Amino acid sequence: MNITGVIVEYNPFHNGHLYHLQKTRETTKADILVAVMSGSFLQRGEPALIHKRSRTRMALAGGADLVVELPYTFSTQHASYFADGAVRILADLGVDTICFGSEQGRIQPFYDLLHFMKAHNNQYQTAIQKQVQIGISYPEAASRAFHSLQPPEGLPDLSQPNNILGFHYMKAIDHRKPSMKAATIQRQGAGYHDAGAKNGIKSATGIRLMLSEGEDFQETAPFLPETSFSELQKGLLMTWENYYPFLQHLLTTQPPDWLQRIYEVEEGLENRAAHAARQAQSFHEWMQRVKTKRYTWTRLQRMAVHILTQTTKAEMNEAMNTDAPTRLLGMNEAGQAYLKMIRHTTAQPIKTNRGQADSAREHLDDKADLTYWLPLTGTERIRAYQQAFAETPVRYERTTQIFKNE
Amino acid sequence: MNITGVIVEYNPFHNGHLYHLQKTRETTKADILVAVMSGSFLQRGEPALIHKRSRTRMALAGGADLVVELPYTFSTQHASYFADGAVRILADLGVDTICFGSEQGRIQPFYDLLHFMKAHNNQYQTAIQKQVQIGISYPEAASRAFHSLQPPEGLPDLSQPNNILGFHYMKAIDHRKPSMKAATIQRQGAGYHDAGAKNGIKSATGIRLMLSEGEDFQETAPFLPETSFSELQKGLLMTWENYYPFLQHLLTTQPPDWLQRIYEVEEGLENRAAHAARQAQSFHEWMQRVKTKRYTWTRLQRMAVHILTQTTKAEMNEAMNTDAPTRLLGMNEAGQAYLKMIRHTTAQPIKTNRGQADSAREHLDDKADLTYWLPLTGTERIRAYQQAFAETPVRYERTTQIFKNE
Repeated sequence: MNITGVIVEYNPFHNGHLYHLQKTRETTKADILVAVMSGSFLQRGEPALIHKRSRTRMALAGGADLVVELPYTFSTQHASYFADGAVRILADLGVDTICFGSEQGRIQPFYDLLHFMKAHNNQYQTAIQKQVQIGISYPEAASRAFHSLQPPEGLPDLSQPNNILGFHYMKAIDHRKPSMKAATIQRQGAGYHDAGAKNGIKSATGIRLMLSEGEDFQETAPFLPETSFSELQKGLLMTWENYYPFLQHLLTTQPPDWLQRIYEVEEGLENRAAHAARQAQSFHEWMQRVKTKRYTWTRLQRMAVHILTQTTKAEMNEAMNTDAPTRLLGMNEAGQAYLKMIRHTTAQPIKTNRGQADSAREHLDDKADLTYWLPLTGTERIRAYQQAFAETPVRYERTTQIFKNE
Repeated sequence: MNITGVIVEYNPFHNGHLYHLQKTRETTKADILVAVMSGSFLQRGEPALIHKRSRTRMALAGGADLVVELPYTFSTQHASYFADGAVRILADLGVDTICFGSEQGRIQPFYDLLHFMKAHNNQYQTAIQKQVQIGISYPEAASRAFHSLQPPEGLPDLSQPNNILGFHYMKAIDHRKPSMKAATIQRQGAGYHDAGAKNGIKSATGIRLMLSEGEDFQETAPFLPETSFSELQKGLLMTWENYYPFLQHLLTTQPPDWLQRIYEVEEGLENRAAHAARQAQSFHEWMQRVKTKRYTWTRLQRMAVHILTQTTKAEMNEAMNTDAPTRLLGMNEAGQAYLKMIRHTTAQPIKTNRGQADSAREHLDDKADLTYWLPLTGTERIRAYQQAFAETPVRYERTTQIFKNE
């Protein structure tokens, strides 16, 4: 039996994701496709465009058999922690192959890269440190360090965002469960940051841009599977701007030392962050005021997420280093049957009913989920809170294409 | 030269306040009337209905010569600290008589009460402690303890809110500057908590109720001097409900121990406060869920204000126990001339331009003022922030009845 895992955000799920899932099943001959998906806040340090329950429906309709949540603890992190957290969860769920999308498209170059990097690790780390110390941002430093190693031809191009992520998955597999295989599918259509479209595929960034610019909603239809389109049509769409008034409040009233306790807030950023909150009329302006060459945009957005959720260094440290149950977001019949099989053999329990948070990691997810609904007020906010804690996993019948418990 | 002080909130300034100011000037033969007025947040633990700048205009048009700010450090406190802070400021401004409104109406009974209480202080404190220990709220405990002392007839009735405040002023005068005199004017019209009206006087509570219940704004006109009416008509009116989404955010994302650091949060309240924020759809409902017999409604509202402004015990402690400049809110020609006279003789500097906060007390006022504008968003919020820090005192020409720098 082949169990294949994918690591996703689906922000939102589009035709490119559909292609990836279909190709993955074909390539890995998967009997079960398990998706581990970011919850309320994402790796780029942003709120999910649409609630994870909607994105779970999109994933199930698109071909995933089982969707579990990538906790806040990992979903709002640098690629290395993001990858490591996701791989750990997939490994515990009995996944034997992880299949990721990449610009590269073939898996052997990733294995070659992994071996090359393992052989030159010390040299590489030293070179990065040197660059960082002179004020270069981490990604740029990593890129420069990599080239200083004079790598052989034919390795994946690490200036491409999906190649980078893929490489972090490879490293995490190597570290956590080397017996697990990796596979890759070449990304189709427009590039990650590209707003254009190709063969009915437009990147998630491009689609979000269309939505935020108030284009006719109907215009996004060619790039979205039907379920995605209808979920986006009926759901609430969130952007950072919806949360900015709350970020501002925290930053303008914080007691001394509070900001220093927040995860990812490093020396020098506290004052910039607090000062900018008194000046900036929008989140985008706030970011521009806080931005320095030293930190990437996404790194600072992640910091902003941790400020918004008041996640301290101590809390994140505990959440990263203690075990927690895996939360099930949705399944189809095949997924459910598979779940029954593995339920009592996974190292971490699988939670189908939310209930009380009984781990540091779940506690952060609770905070993140409550924070996610900040743009709502009054009755609506409380109803969303109640729903968040009463939710059962989405159940999808693949044969009839019906969501059973909606 | 007679300098008389009044301690006020003017939330909003109404015909009863106008009567009080006129009677005060007459009774004390005041050459200068100095009002010390609560800023953004008030003694009952509420945001001011309308911004302090508007309330300053009302006060000047109503007869005050000088209006200074009662800092957040004192304005959001139990009556004893509220009174003490206000009396200290008035004393430093050279005030020789404080004239307060009371249900009692004659000053001698207050002096009698003061002497009686000084003679029985130990007994009184012990009796209060006993009651508080069995879970009685402080005001009720104080009332029971008072009666247990078997006070003589004719003392002010301490079940009346303005008599209580008046008595706290007397105690503060006795403690801070016994040479300062006290005077009182009998309150006219409806009672403090009474929503009715009498002789064109309706309590501030009654007027706020009319406004919150969406009655025709014009209906409030008979109870308000002209300036009050026009300020209320053009100003933004704030209630706790405007701030509740932000309180909720703080309470649902707080890291461990955060709430315990907040001023006025005492054991047992943290959990109730945090839990209620997940359940309550409005501030009023939140209060009802947090309320216990042990704490009064206003005590809990004050706690909520400190949560909203993230004011810690340490911050409040420092602000209460270190000196700070007095902030001028407004003046007329007489007030300005008086100010020139005393400028270099007061113990605390008088700040006419806001500038940088250079004391713990001013820092809390900055936080309070930024918090006050939370109901605004985007450009409007930033404009309000900028205004708050660029503001110069209101200048009123009594002869022409013109505000000069508007």
